[in-house]
Amino acid sequence: MRILIKNAMILPMDEPGHQISNGYIIVENGRIKSLGEGDSAETAFDKVIDADGKAALPGFVNAHTHAAMVLLRGYADDMPLMDWLQYKIWPVEAKLNGDDIYWGTMLAAVEMIKSGTTCFNDMYFYMDDAARAVEDSGIRAVINRGMIGVGPEAEIAFPESSRMVEKWHGAAGGRITCKLGPHAPYTCPPPYLERVVKLAEELKVGLHIHIAETLAEIETIKNDYGCSPVEYLERCGIFKLPVTAAHCVHVSPSDMETLKKYNVGVAHCPESNMKLGSGFAPVKEMLELGIQVGLGTDGASSNNDQDMLQEMRSAAFLQKVKNYDPTVIPAYTALEMVTRNGAIALGLDDEIGQLKPGYKADLILIDCAGAHMQPLHELAANLVYCAHSSDVETVIIDGVVVMENRTINTLDEKEVIKKAAAVARDLVNRP
Amino acid sequence: MRILIKNAMILPMDEPGHQISNGYIIVENGRIKSLGEGDSAETAFDKVIDADGKAALPGFVNAHTHAAMVLLRGYADDMPLMDWLQYKIWPVEAKLNGDDIYWGTMLAAVEMIKSGTTCFNDMYFYMDDAARAVEDSGIRAVINRGMIGVGPEAEIAFPESSRMVEKWHGAAGGRITCKLGPHAPYTCPPPYLERVVKLAEELKVGLHIHIAETLAEIETIKNDYGCSPVEYLERCGIFKLPVTAAHCVHVSPSDMETLKKYNVGVAHCPESNMKLGSGFAPVKEMLELGIQVGLGTDGASSNNDQDMLQEMRSAAFLQKVKNYDPTVIPAYTALEMVTRNGAIALGLDDEIGQLKPGYKADLILIDCAGAHMQPLHELAANLVYCAHSSDVETVIIDGVVVMENRTINTLDEKEVIKKAAAVARDLVNRP
Repeated sequence: MRILIKNAMILPMDEPGHQISNGYIIVENGRIKSLGEGDSAETAFDKVIDADGKAALPGFVNAHTHAAMVLLRGYADDMPLMDWLQYKIWPVEAKLNGDDIYWGTMLAAVEMIKSGTTCFNDMYFYMDDAARAVEDSGIRAVINRGMIGVGPEAEIAFPESSRMVEKWHGAAGGRITCKLGPHAPYTCPPPYLERVVKLAEELKVGLHIHIAETLAEIETIKNDYGCSPVEYLERCGIFKLPVTAAHCVHVSPSDMETLKKYNVGVAHCPESNMKLGSGFAPVKEMLELGIQVGLGTDGASSNNDQDMLQEMRSAAFLQKVKNYDPTVIPAYTALEMVTRNGAIALGLDDEIGQLKPGYKADLILIDCAGAHMQPLHELAANLVYCAHSSDVETVIIDGVVVMENRTINTLDEKEVIKKAAAVARDLVNRP
Repeated sequence: MRILIKNAMILPMDEPGHQISNGYIIVENGRIKSLGEGDSAETAFDKVIDADGKAALPGFVNAHTHAAMVLLRGYADDMPLMDWLQYKIWPVEAKLNGDDIYWGTMLAAVEMIKSGTTCFNDMYFYMDDAARAVEDSGIRAVINRGMIGVGPEAEIAFPESSRMVEKWHGAAGGRITCKLGPHAPYTCPPPYLERVVKLAEELKVGLHIHIAETLAEIETIKNDYGCSPVEYLERCGIFKLPVTAAHCVHVSPSDMETLKKYNVGVAHCPESNMKLGSGFAPVKEMLELGIQVGLGTDGASSNNDQDMLQEMRSAAFLQKVKNYDPTVIPAYTALEMVTRNGAIALGLDDEIGQLKPGYKADLILIDCAGAHMQPLHELAANLVYCAHSSDVETVIIDGVVVMENRTINTLDEKEVIKKAAAVARDLVNRP
């Protein structure tokens, strides 16, 4: 399959500020073959896409989510955090089954594809079913089974994680990779974490964990171990492995030095942090230290969408107001966070996150013709501050045209929405 | 013209929490005639709209903007505030002409209609041209000519404002009303403000002013007058008149008492405050005091859109994180801010902001079928946290179907975008 995209405004995200005002991209056998200014001299394409008036950029990387939680979108919002978890979210989550997870993940995949996300990092349960949805929808994902060391599922999480890695790591033509998903410092005691590290080393996979999301967590870890969550995790040895750390809201300068020292990738989730009232992550400081900060939506219960365009806009806005400084996180930096940085944070930066010859062809075309996108004085600014998911017109993942002119080719969108909505209604009423 | 909307999920925004799960709305002669559960017994309609799967609610009120600034959308973003104003925005604004303003306001009207805004409060220049755009586009607006007491235009602003009120107050079948627009405490010295108040009293119109937007303003007013901006304005007597106060970011408890005492309507602009790094308005506290807080986008240079769905989402998120409390500004309150509160803040609450018999028929239908809007556990939550402007399907203003199925009937959308984009390109390159 050879695809030519022509007449595009291209942001390859390979070098700071690099922009091609009118150029082409050639996709061959699932990878970017070449790209450049003007017209390509090559011929014989299976498909030609005229991207006149459209921006081409790497597909967005959602570096932290719980995809199937879209089933609980808008269920019991605006509540105090612990009441919400204890009386609403956890009881419903306890009723989830594999079928729910499949349809929930499919619904999330539809929403992600339609908003330009081509890869997501998913921590949840019934990962066989989540993986099937990734396979069927055509999206790329890093999957991990949440491992909670203090509940009834503490033990079963090990064999389930092993089986997941064995079955799915590298599956779907390489679109699926696996990590282990120890949930958080406050749910994983030291011996448990040490076993997780050991298993990850055996399986040769990295880790995905929540770190320092709330002030309550900081207090709990301080009380239990006399240190910060980052210090606690360093002691338990988890940073020997490649780690994607979600949130990192309440990290001290010394914690940040530790994150940098071990090349921990951070998945900043500004909208979740805002909506749950968790706090203001020191993103400016982390970026200045050279920490790779990507962005994540978190689960739809706390966001309430899976839309990286919204997330990057909020990330920029939140840092500007936090620092009382409009120059913090300029538009191009926000774009880096949802593409290249996200790929680095997931350890996939040799394959995705940039438009570069040899890289996997995960790319999107964004229409810039709408009233809210004009005039177009500065492409990056309009993409970050003005673009809506409905402007994402074409999505290519692993060289396959997954969406064209807003129609998803890999699945029946209406059917997925209908099924998932039915599953969600049933779920919250299930005894 | 008699219109029936049937099978709608209706949020009339007249009483807290009032929701009609499946009902009808009848529009007659520009006003809401009736609404209720189930089917209407009436017959003989000129138009019937089946709103199955859609939410019906009052059109959004954008309580503070500078509409034609969409021409500068994305022009010189992410700069320090004073450099941005002095070297970029003000020099370009000095070159604006009436034709620019007409096309800029038309572009803003397209963007607003397409995102569900049916009324906006506009402070800018060349208001004859802005008013023509309001007239032609079919939207509703409160218009006011910015009055700056310290520049070359200080004097001309008076006769221009008088002529504007004479010509446009109540024009376009009542869709246009006027206020006077003294710019801000730091640009209007006491004698100037006193003259503005006198003219407003003569013309029997209210005022629209920026108050306490930045810490720099607080310092300036403190240095010049030894008090806060709100105290300064109270001394100058402006609160004798109905006032819409934009921003109110840095207001003290005593300032808030003053705003409450005089029934000042506040136009909170969370995204502008975030993007420009202005700060965190005490919205929770103002609402608790009973101050009517509506929302505004501010000009597109500092936002960068004219989208009230984005604005209400950000308003809720920002207050939650500011207060470290997810219960602050629940979804329904955010909806009140963009409808009823906005109408009160503009002094139009006898006519718009609610769906109620006798009220002007300014209403919108939002499609809830998209993947990002499903499941629909809670309508208000999905509207505030998930809806996109592209979900706004139908917009009725003053009883006229201005947009149906995303097509605007009152103007040629493509032509407006083309003209406005050309004007914007010319503007920034004009000598």
